Amino acid sequence: MLPLPDRYLSALLARYNGRMLLIDCGEGTQITMHRLGWGFVNLDSILITHFHADHIAGLPGMLLSLSNYGRERPLTIVGPEGIENVVNSLRVIAPELQYTIQFVELSFEEKTVIRFRLGDFHLAALPLSHTLPCVGYNLLFPRKGKFNPERARALKIPLGYWSRLQKGETVSGFAPEAVLGAPRKGIKISYITDTRPIDTIPEFIKDADLFICEGLYGDDKLKQQADRYYHMIFSDAAKLARAGNVKELWLTHFSQALTDPESHLSRVRKIFPNTVVGADRLTKSFTFVD
Amino acid sequence: MLPLPDRYLSALLARYNGRMLLIDCGEGTQITMHRLGWGFVNLDSILITHFHADHIAGLPGMLLSLSNYGRERPLTIVGPEGIENVVNSLRVIAPELQYTIQFVELSFEEKTVIRFRLGDFHLAALPLSHTLPCVGYNLLFPRKGKFNPERARALKIPLGYWSRLQKGETVSGFAPEAVLGAPRKGIKISYITDTRPIDTIPEFIKDADLFICEGLYGDDKLKQQADRYYHMIFSDAAKLARAGNVKELWLTHFSQALTDPESHLSRVRKIFPNTVVGADRLTKSFTFVD
Repeated sequence: MLPLPDRYLSALLARYNGRMLLIDCGEGTQITMHRLGWGFVNLDSILITHFHADHIAGLPGMLLSLSNYGRERPLTIVGPEGIENVVNSLRVIAPELQYTIQFVELSFEEKTVIRFRLGDFHLAALPLSHTLPCVGYNLLFPRKGKFNPERARALKIPLGYWSRLQKGETVSGFAPEAVLGAPRKGIKISYITDTRPIDTIPEFIKDADLFICEGLYGDDKLKQQADRYYHMIFSDAAKLARAGNVKELWLTHFSQALTDPESHLSRVRKIFPNTVVGADRLTKSFTFVD
Repeated sequence: MLPLPDRYLSALLARYNGRMLLIDCGEGTQITMHRLGWGFVNLDSILITHFHADHIAGLPGMLLSLSNYGRERPLTIVGPEGIENVVNSLRVIAPELQYTIQFVELSFEEKTVIRFRLGDFHLAALPLSHTLPCVGYNLLFPRKGKFNPERARALKIPLGYWSRLQKGETVSGFAPEAVLGAPRKGIKISYITDTRPIDTIPEFIKDADLFICEGLYGDDKLKQQADRYYHMIFSDAAKLARAGNVKELWLTHFSQALTDPESHLSRVRKIFPNTVVGADRLTKSFTFVD
């Protein structure tokens, strides 16, 4: 919540097929992105969870830097209702950009999940329960079924069409479904912060390969205080991870009073064993499993 | 201009008699203040030079953090005309603060220096020449003349009054001037960024103990480019330092393309020998010289 020398503020950078998408942009995000070394050129979209400074204060500087790096392609910014006004207010210190910003405002009917796609990133958004409108995001990377060469030969499909059919295109009347098996398991990353542990979360994060979740405090004794601030404690996050049957839980968004988050791990792992304490530039690569 | 892992954005923190004053608040300022370890409680004022993101993007996060640290005393924010509007726009992401902000907007008649005082900090502000209104600041710490006990005895001033007279108070009709010598040399720090090297600067920075000055590029061949952006090169800063007869020059505000500012030092020192390349948390203590 407060940026510390080795604990910058909320941000998740995802890279897929060379393109990048950022969720949240707390103060210091562009500095830690420099350290990470993935560059800035391939960043296409920035998704904001909510309008508290610890999640968005790095945005005006980021927008200006992207312009200084020579960006001319439009940038997409997604967030809850009001995102365009908020970003335009912040742009009082970054008025002149060489590129345009395309806004996507998410308007939720109660508890409805919104699904959308930005380039190769498939996304889902869930309304959360915080002190102001806040959104949880799933990053989804669906995977097509396996190409069946025997079927393709039997249907007398010319070899030249195969790769396009594999990509899901219809070619000269041949439908990809004819030669592709059932969709295979894709990859799913869930990002949930800031919120109380509401009961729509387990279904939303179901079977995620990685569940990144806030935990303001480690100590169970601070549960009431976390509730009062519309936040979670570590064991809330672990219970959601277990209920959602996710593969791995990363804890993030610690109170500045929580100086030793590791000290709570053994207890939390009794609820959900594969729990990791988040850290700046904690990175993981996922590959499709055959 | 762009925050890099070991080169955060513009900020100068000054501490005097335990109170602190900050000039500029680029992204990452509160992080580097954590590293410095002087705390946040005694910060009374924030002075902004101009409204470019690299000088002010850290402000909303700083305001929110001060509130989270329990601040209740008012904070003074000083800047060029428009400062109140700009800060209020930025506060879209930090709307709820537990303290009030007191704004001081500086309205310059052409080339006029504005003098003002904030607590024990005596300040002067000079309009600069940048792409938008921009202000240079002097931090001044004047020093009273030496107390003359012989004079005090000759005037039959009771011993109990002496210390208050020493502080410059008038006590029971006794004027401090009667027992104090001529004002002694104080301390003067000048902070000039962003601007072209205009001809009002040497007089403004005259005899400063420390002159902190921007230098976008080190290479003299980039002089035209620096002019075009309303910035300086290192040798501009050195010439101002020499013309202003300052004691020491710190260069700051480097272009991200300037990866090795030290490589230009030997050349610049031919113009002004006591030149130092600025760095994050570069710190210097000054004491009154008897």
